[in-house]
Amino acid sequence: MNQATATAADTDVDLSPIRGFLLCETPASWVEAAGRPENLSTLLIDHANCEKKAASTALNLMYRYVEHPSLLHKLSRLAREELRHFEQVLAIIEKRGLDYPQLTAARYAGGLRTCVDKNEPYRLLDTLLVGAIIEARSCERFAAVLPVVDEELGRFYASLLRSESRHFMDYLSLARDLLPDMDVDARLVPLLERERELIESEDQEFRFHSGVPAA
Amino acid sequence: MNQATATAADTDVDLSPIRGFLLCETPASWVEAAGRPENLSTLLIDHANCEKKAASTALNLMYRYVEHPSLLHKLSRLAREELRHFEQVLAIIEKRGLDYPQLTAARYAGGLRTCVDKNEPYRLLDTLLVGAIIEARSCERFAAVLPVVDEELGRFYASLLRSESRHFMDYLSLARDLLPDMDVDARLVPLLERERELIESEDQEFRFHSGVPAA
Repeated sequence: MNQATATAADTDVDLSPIRGFLLCETPASWVEAAGRPENLSTLLIDHANCEKKAASTALNLMYRYVEHPSLLHKLSRLAREELRHFEQVLAIIEKRGLDYPQLTAARYAGGLRTCVDKNEPYRLLDTLLVGAIIEARSCERFAAVLPVVDEELGRFYASLLRSESRHFMDYLSLARDLLPDMDVDARLVPLLERERELIESEDQEFRFHSGVPAA
Repeated sequence: MNQATATAADTDVDLSPIRGFLLCETPASWVEAAGRPENLSTLLIDHANCEKKAASTALNLMYRYVEHPSLLHKLSRLAREELRHFEQVLAIIEKRGLDYPQLTAARYAGGLRTCVDKNEPYRLLDTLLVGAIIEARSCERFAAVLPVVDEELGRFYASLLRSESRHFMDYLSLARDLLPDMDVDARLVPLLERERELIESEDQEFRFHSGVPAA
């Protein structure tokens, strides 16, 4: 496999807001696992599934909160971008002759969603913040895998950094704009701590958002 | 309200395949109701909801049938187009200062989905054919309302005819391509008959896909 020489520093996307936001970096052992040829298919298919899931999450919000035009506009555009990325991953999967089997989801997004309050307006706030966190982690992870994937994938992942970084900001600014009376930063603390636990604890299965690979 | 002079004949979209496919035209009483100023807000908001729902339906198929790359590609692009249309309707709703309340769905799509077989491969076949039918009816209905809506809406609906007509063909060709051993035309008969019933029977509430308005 050709290794790309690209790193996040070679792109012109400033990742410092994302790295300052998340409480931990992707563990080196996950990056090492992501570079293993036997995990390539899972990396690509789970990434494709994450793009679909990101579009579905945005659509679900667009059903529930029709009273917020800014949410409807931003999330519809976001969903379109995620679907475009899905098509791009799918093209890579097909070009490489890989199958697209059903794949169980990582525990990650489900683990974060258990923290979402069931009552409004906390539910909206938490859902937007979880969206911001997942987009931030995806962006951080695309940057983390750049040095261990082949050139074609490296170029593709580098191209995704910009939009994932924008999506992180979209979710965060929606939370601040739509819920101006709520203490967004205070609510972020437990959600980000939960995210760190999910990323730094051991995971049996390798996925795009999995934790430390089990020994 | 300014009446548009546009009719379907003024667009360059050939609607004859769609009119030949559906078993009935939109009843004149529905068209008359669609042109009433008091129904304008419902027409626009339900149309926006239909675009969201069309995107969700495509996404649901993209979760269930990952083994069919052609389905994944076609429906992802279709979902992106439906979301783009959603944003366009939303812009019109906002420009006109209309609220976007939660609105119950028409009985139409649910009424068609009760005909979908629960077992594969009939489930896939039926779901694709119901998709084709809904897209065909939407296209037929956009053409039907052209003479009774104002100029801006007329231009917008005329612009949608082409893509809805393409979506109809996408669903139909997916059914024929993915299920070459099944008798697609035979299965279409009861689905289209059910559709005619839903369109020609009386409906209590006016919606984009509602039947004959109750007296």
